[in-house]
Amino acid sequence: MTGIDHTHDAALRSWVPGADGHPDFPIQNLPLGVFSPGDGVMRPGAAIGDRILDLKALLATGLLAGDAAAAAEAAGETALNSLLALGAGPRRALRARLSELLRAGSADRDRVAPFLHEAASCTLHLPARIGDYTDFYVGIHHAENIGKQFRPDNPLLPNYKHVPIGYHGRASSIRPSGIPVRRPRGQSKAPDAAAPRFGPSARLDLELELGVWIGPGNDLGTPIPIGAAQDHVAGYCLLNDWSARDIQAWEYQPLGPFLAKNFASTISPWIVTPEALAPFRIPQAARPAGDPAPLPYLLDESDQASGAFDLRLEVLLVTPGLREAGLAPHRVSVSNARHMYWTMAQLVAHHTSGGCNLQPGDLLGTGTLSGPDRDACGSLVEATLGGREPLRLASGEERRFLEDGDEVILRARGVREGFATVGLGECRAEILGAVA
Amino acid sequence: MTGIDHTHDAALRSWVPGADGHPDFPIQNLPLGVFSPGDGVMRPGAAIGDRILDLKALLATGLLAGDAAAAAEAAGETALNSLLALGAGPRRALRARLSELLRAGSADRDRVAPFLHEAASCTLHLPARIGDYTDFYVGIHHAENIGKQFRPDNPLLPNYKHVPIGYHGRASSIRPSGIPVRRPRGQSKAPDAAAPRFGPSARLDLELELGVWIGPGNDLGTPIPIGAAQDHVAGYCLLNDWSARDIQAWEYQPLGPFLAKNFASTISPWIVTPEALAPFRIPQAARPAGDPAPLPYLLDESDQASGAFDLRLEVLLVTPGLREAGLAPHRVSVSNARHMYWTMAQLVAHHTSGGCNLQPGDLLGTGTLSGPDRDACGSLVEATLGGREPLRLASGEERRFLEDGDEVILRARGVREGFATVGLGECRAEILGAVA
Repeated sequence: MTGIDHTHDAALRSWVPGADGHPDFPIQNLPLGVFSPGDGVMRPGAAIGDRILDLKALLATGLLAGDAAAAAEAAGETALNSLLALGAGPRRALRARLSELLRAGSADRDRVAPFLHEAASCTLHLPARIGDYTDFYVGIHHAENIGKQFRPDNPLLPNYKHVPIGYHGRASSIRPSGIPVRRPRGQSKAPDAAAPRFGPSARLDLELELGVWIGPGNDLGTPIPIGAAQDHVAGYCLLNDWSARDIQAWEYQPLGPFLAKNFASTISPWIVTPEALAPFRIPQAARPAGDPAPLPYLLDESDQASGAFDLRLEVLLVTPGLREAGLAPHRVSVSNARHMYWTMAQLVAHHTSGGCNLQPGDLLGTGTLSGPDRDACGSLVEATLGGREPLRLASGEERRFLEDGDEVILRARGVREGFATVGLGECRAEILGAVA
Repeated sequence: MTGIDHTHDAALRSWVPGADGHPDFPIQNLPLGVFSPGDGVMRPGAAIGDRILDLKALLATGLLAGDAAAAAEAAGETALNSLLALGAGPRRALRARLSELLRAGSADRDRVAPFLHEAASCTLHLPARIGDYTDFYVGIHHAENIGKQFRPDNPLLPNYKHVPIGYHGRASSIRPSGIPVRRPRGQSKAPDAAAPRFGPSARLDLELELGVWIGPGNDLGTPIPIGAAQDHVAGYCLLNDWSARDIQAWEYQPLGPFLAKNFASTISPWIVTPEALAPFRIPQAARPAGDPAPLPYLLDESDQASGAFDLRLEVLLVTPGLREAGLAPHRVSVSNARHMYWTMAQLVAHHTSGGCNLQPGDLLGTGTLSGPDRDACGSLVEATLGGREPLRLASGEERRFLEDGDEVILRARGVREGFATVGLGECRAEILGAVA
């Protein structure tokens, strides 16, 4: 490897058909995941265009050496945790070597080509075993929008601008894109009802989030300082933190959301590396002048200068009516990752500041990333003002909350002049009716 | 096996020295765990008196057959998850066979004795890999006591008697008894301070809880009905849910406790089976007449009749002053598991009611099990009325909250006329000073 990273160069072309100009996975991305081709056997892979490169088969050819080979060796057949644990060095070496092998003019094209699979005929799995999952609340517009509905007199609590608010979520119910989500049943209580009822959630919602994959992590009792926090981020994904608002409103006091969130979460199945997203870093942008300065354990000059991301985020909705009429998905919102009040590094530093240990393959969610406007809401409860103003679709349908048969698609893309567009892939799932 | 379970008979005697009359582990208990003897190699075992029986070595002798052998085979070298996954049949068969082999008069005594290790020279480990950890809040006296301090006007929220309140905790920081706990640093804000500060917690507390080990569990989207919930409980332990009250007060709104709890939790390392605790089952006792009836998904006649436990619970405190003066530990409180407002089966049924999947080796905490009186408080924040009325120790020391060098010991025992006393073992840990 040279000291200069050429893997982002917009001029790079790949010999893989369809990779150049691919909206998510051009040669400048090269995300990592776990897939099964037609034979059903799980294995680690890298996405390029509409293909997936089998990393174990590639390793067996001898085309990888040194750190790049070490990374591919560490990639497990069914989970990438051991690769994530290696940290940035081997991950970058693998990326650099894949970039060489897959670029137009590579002398090794004929040796690599046999190990490419059509993504459309493969199954994508969770890329790692998720030990613990933590969800934050860093979208300040979301916090304000939700706060207004739950606490009209007190939308943003006094701790919000000091503490990166987060809570523990459920790891066992996280599924990769494409797995349907069953509508939960649960307790809810209408404001004027004498007692709660138990039944299917009537206010099923989506949440547009980014996920953060943890790399090496820390020992219990040994916090990660803010200046080292980036070393422990192995990559990013999209996260739909499905939420049953009626269950949430009734159960969440005093210990936070529980059954309202733990019935399912959906993630995009590719780990998009910090290297691939480097061109889209921007200064920490969502903290207005005049807001309190972060406490020293959350403050790092380099993080303030480049710790945020400019990623265009989209929520799309496909309903049975749109599907039957052959109409395009309804665009619910367009937002941006720049609306994070805290950076990814601040989340890692805060999470470990009391000694809590993060482990390779742990997942952090950012919280819902809404923008300031009505057409930038990352959830339906915001977009419809708690269900009072339904979305009107081209099919003539209305939506206050999700109905059975609806499908939600999340997208995230870095778009910057002079750089290839890079995306996180798709995070989609359809809603199934509740169990009888 | 016969249809009648004789493994509780008070008349049973064991040939293992010190087992008869052991306060936790007589032959009527036989809990399961993972240990390392002097050679450091981890292996599954069963506790009997002050000894541990090596289950893999026993299996190799051929003294186990059928379901009992299947259970010992499933017990992993480093974790019992696969044994827990088998459910009650093999677990009971193993218990019945161990009871035969270890009882006085067993013809196999000489073949079994070589596989007993002195517990005092062994290291005890977590008995299973904990996938997800959930903490409930079923101690109604605790909820009232804490509620008064956080919300004087509104101690018990309107949902408490309808919803088994719970939240997700941190699995990665759970440690077995004996591992010291480092005092966390974190943000806190005095009521009259203009801004928060970051530093060592000044209000470090313990919480007296029971833990529930999950057995087979359920598929995502397939709730466990209340009538089947007991089939998914593999056993019990003690749980100290260490809590930093100053961090908690500042961070917990609106999403619940996070860093205030995730720096460490300590459990007793033995899985005490439902079979061993069967003599201590009592009718659901903590729900006063006139309280709302549980919704149907939480209501089961047999569970109401015998779903609660009569277990004596104790919190002991050892301070540097007591230690130096050679004084006995200070008994902070004596409580009882009967103060659970919801049964273990109700926790399992509620947790899965929206479709959330439980997996073998998941851990549930009950929440703090305080009794109605000041000497039955399961936490210091209750026992000292938020630090206003310190404990006075025989050493002349006072304690409002835990200080560095303090050690907390939790105990739980079933004591019933006509039955051998059975305990969960010890859950203890010492507090270390915060990192500099």
